[in-house]
Amino acid sequence: MDYVLGIDIGGTSIKGAIVNKEGKVLTDAFSFPIIKKENQVDTINRLCSTVKSYLKDNSEYVIEGIGIGIPGSLDTEKGVVIFSNNLCWENLPIVDIFKKHFSLPIRITNDANAAALGENRFGAGKEYQDMIMITLGTGVGGGIIDNHKLIEGYQGKGAELGHTVIRMNGRKCSCGRKGCLEQYASATALIRMTKEMMLKDKSSLLWSMDKIDGKSAFIAARKKDKLAIKIVDKYVSYLGEGLLNFCNIFRPECIVLSGGIAKEGDYLIDKLDAYLAKQEYGYPRSPKTVIKVAELGYNSGIIGAASLLL
Amino acid sequence: MDYVLGIDIGGTSIKGAIVNKEGKVLTDAFSFPIIKKENQVDTINRLCSTVKSYLKDNSEYVIEGIGIGIPGSLDTEKGVVIFSNNLCWENLPIVDIFKKHFSLPIRITNDANAAALGENRFGAGKEYQDMIMITLGTGVGGGIIDNHKLIEGYQGKGAELGHTVIRMNGRKCSCGRKGCLEQYASATALIRMTKEMMLKDKSSLLWSMDKIDGKSAFIAARKKDKLAIKIVDKYVSYLGEGLLNFCNIFRPECIVLSGGIAKEGDYLIDKLDAYLAKQEYGYPRSPKTVIKVAELGYNSGIIGAASLLL
Repeated sequence: MDYVLGIDIGGTSIKGAIVNKEGKVLTDAFSFPIIKKENQVDTINRLCSTVKSYLKDNSEYVIEGIGIGIPGSLDTEKGVVIFSNNLCWENLPIVDIFKKHFSLPIRITNDANAAALGENRFGAGKEYQDMIMITLGTGVGGGIIDNHKLIEGYQGKGAELGHTVIRMNGRKCSCGRKGCLEQYASATALIRMTKEMMLKDKSSLLWSMDKIDGKSAFIAARKKDKLAIKIVDKYVSYLGEGLLNFCNIFRPECIVLSGGIAKEGDYLIDKLDAYLAKQEYGYPRSPKTVIKVAELGYNSGIIGAASLLL
Repeated sequence: MDYVLGIDIGGTSIKGAIVNKEGKVLTDAFSFPIIKKENQVDTINRLCSTVKSYLKDNSEYVIEGIGIGIPGSLDTEKGVVIFSNNLCWENLPIVDIFKKHFSLPIRITNDANAAALGENRFGAGKEYQDMIMITLGTGVGGGIIDNHKLIEGYQGKGAELGHTVIRMNGRKCSCGRKGCLEQYASATALIRMTKEMMLKDKSSLLWSMDKIDGKSAFIAARKKDKLAIKIVDKYVSYLGEGLLNFCNIFRPECIVLSGGIAKEGDYLIDKLDAYLAKQEYGYPRSPKTVIKVAELGYNSGIIGAASLLL
């Protein structure tokens, strides 16, 4: 398709724009506020009206399909949002509602999968046929690309890479299991570790900081603070074990990191590379996996969603 | 294709037979002994001669391709055995050698992948588009099927599901990592656990057994031996955590178990089902994953290898 509308549904607002087959965003994005107490079907009907007038305003591009990235658990085959915690949506037949308004192919996937597909088609992973993407934010999200195609699992409910246990009987996770990667490799986990570990060394630079967030340990470690280096190395070992697991499962040519922690760039990647190299990237005689930072930036959600049809 | 030759390479011998598109083995299998000290290229040339005379003897079936399952690390795209520890093969261009003898499509995959594909096409997993297979033997092998297709990873080097860490810094694994699933869910691991745990209870039925193997704990547990039930439950918890990880990654409709431990059948599966149900099969609101035992039996390697082209 030449032109596709990509829609990125977030926790508080929805944005969308027209994307061409080179993955370029051609129009200023629309922004649509989500009203928490509104009936979920009304929200989507209202969104469709906004999309219609947006397309009218940008009628120089005739779109051939609509791709939508949604946070939460979906049935991508039926086009239904099964449950989205942040949005309070449940069993919402979003594709059917869109189809009442638009005679176009409509596809949905979860936001992490959309981001992975976008990076594979147009971003950091575009040279690689086999890629995984890990988002290191409040939680740990995942997306899997095999031979340039999204692996979503049955009903699109797989690729929950953050919810794989690396430490059996470890920290309790929101998913109900104990010891998930998310509990050790998310920004939330890094902040917790920083706060816990700094108690052991009152001379650390960390104590001179106004507040502790996901950057603090990295900032102090770059300044050679010993405790901060320990914290970062510990974090890297947890994330590294997760990545090694994914290497052994998928043998990706490339792992793309996104989310707040990925902003640490080469400093983080050099440490991860060293950690993975120690174990021959997960398995003897394995090809090296390139670790990179996501490139699509602010519009990654829109481009990723559009990629479902591009 | 109507008829394909499936070749199953084992540690000490190679067997093969003609398989039709319904997955039925049509001919008595040939068996070809591997001579350990023979040059690896000579072995394959000799194998090709055996195959030629075998096909001549069975000329009522005109084969259209040859599929080969091989234990070890392969480059499936280039058709090369990178390294096979048991066979002492290294950088062996097996497909090129076969092509000198046969003007037919030749495909290779590792033995675990071949078995998974066979079960998905013709065995326990044939009703399911998304399936994984776990072999519980000396080690823990894996095969991944997404939408009826084999997911092998880059160069066919992925799907090493046994080499995913479930217990960070746990038992040292042959792959170089610590805490791999293989160290807790293989038959080898169960035997070790049985021997270790029986030391704590000299009144256990296990002490009356002639020898301890992978069946011992299950035999005694079925007879309500308390310690044996503990051992089996502990084993199930390790295997269960591995399966839950794969559920969250692949959301398979079906998990097929094979290898020695899978022979425990419903007794094992009922316990695994209960373990997985406690955590909603890995993630809230997830579809249930059916756990089954492999069905293809003795010829599974041949049928699986042939499935590469059927």
